[in-house]
Amino acid sequence: MELYSYFRSSASYRVRIALALKGLAYDYKAIHLLKNEQQSESYAAVAPSRLVPSLRDGDAVIAQSLAIIEYLDETHPEPPLLPRDALGRARVRALSLDVACEIHPLNNLRVLRYLVRDLKVSDEDKDRWYRHWVETGLLAVEQQLASQPQTGIYAHGDAPTMADCTLVPQIFNAQRLQCRLDHVPTVMRVFDACMKLPAFSETQPSKCPDAA
Amino acid sequence: MELYSYFRSSASYRVRIALALKGLAYDYKAIHLLKNEQQSESYAAVAPSRLVPSLRDGDAVIAQSLAIIEYLDETHPEPPLLPRDALGRARVRALSLDVACEIHPLNNLRVLRYLVRDLKVSDEDKDRWYRHWVETGLLAVEQQLASQPQTGIYAHGDAPTMADCTLVPQIFNAQRLQCRLDHVPTVMRVFDACMKLPAFSETQPSKCPDAA
Repeated sequence: MELYSYFRSSASYRVRIALALKGLAYDYKAIHLLKNEQQSESYAAVAPSRLVPSLRDGDAVIAQSLAIIEYLDETHPEPPLLPRDALGRARVRALSLDVACEIHPLNNLRVLRYLVRDLKVSDEDKDRWYRHWVETGLLAVEQQLASQPQTGIYAHGDAPTMADCTLVPQIFNAQRLQCRLDHVPTVMRVFDACMKLPAFSETQPSKCPDAA
Repeated sequence: MELYSYFRSSASYRVRIALALKGLAYDYKAIHLLKNEQQSESYAAVAPSRLVPSLRDGDAVIAQSLAIIEYLDETHPEPPLLPRDALGRARVRALSLDVACEIHPLNNLRVLRYLVRDLKVSDEDKDRWYRHWVETGLLAVEQQLASQPQTGIYAHGDAPTMADCTLVPQIFNAQRLQCRLDHVPTVMRVFDACMKLPAFSETQPSKCPDAA
């Protein structure tokens, strides 16, 4: 398999964690977002949406980090990244989407660029925007993790799931932009538990082949 | 089952379509977003994330539209809303996420409000922002639908899937805000095919119990 990744892309990091949890080997193909390599025609031939990450498996290319993780879970079932029961699966998917739909899209690179370049928003306001969505979005995750009995050592039970694969990279982004995190203690307890596992720590941005 | 919905919420519309395709009956619980009813304590007791839609099934409440659709597909398998093969499932999920992560989060109500109220973006620039993400996001979907042999009468093959449940409500939003759509002919062909089915047409915003 080949993973098209950028070290600082949190969506790429989600997939790196999932591959590591599954113990799957892959070739790392760096796509440098700041150099706009995702817009190249050669990458568009791989990924028509020109987004990172994408995963090549044989002749097929799979897009969208959560779709990739579900695909890996279906084709390499052990260890499972989704629970066996439908309600548990729904909870893990919903927690993942709470990050992937409610937080991350508002602070990825192309959106921040549009705010500054096209809407002429100041750098201070751009940072305020970033922190607003991270801090309120993580609070919504916190309220679920803190109140629901399914929360365990990790976001769902005592083994890592897709929810942890999605949550941990978002915390890296939050820390890099100095967002407040003292209001989400359960989130941070789960984060700390995850970071004790090599699948999370060895795939973090600074350890990627393309790390600056 | 009970669906907490707002007639104009495109994420709610996704689930209304899925429930109709499955032929499942439910009670419609209106949550008026413009009146901020999703922020009420009574709704927070149902849905800690305070987002619409959510689905109550017995004692359980499921959040996030795509997680709800996957749950419905697992608990009521016929007709399937995801293909049987792993690669097909990955494609349907990726197309769904191309709308749910790359387009919709940038133009939902709370984000538009924040742009205008907090960042003091003008109404013209807010509309420009809206159209930019809809038009570029739908182009990425178009490039996949137009180039990939899996596209059929619908987004994936000749029966509606979760990808159609996600795409159609986004077109309603695009039309309401007068976005350009002549650059996405395959998307619009799929949209027209979907709208011939009662599951899509009878659940559209204007036909909801809470339609203004």
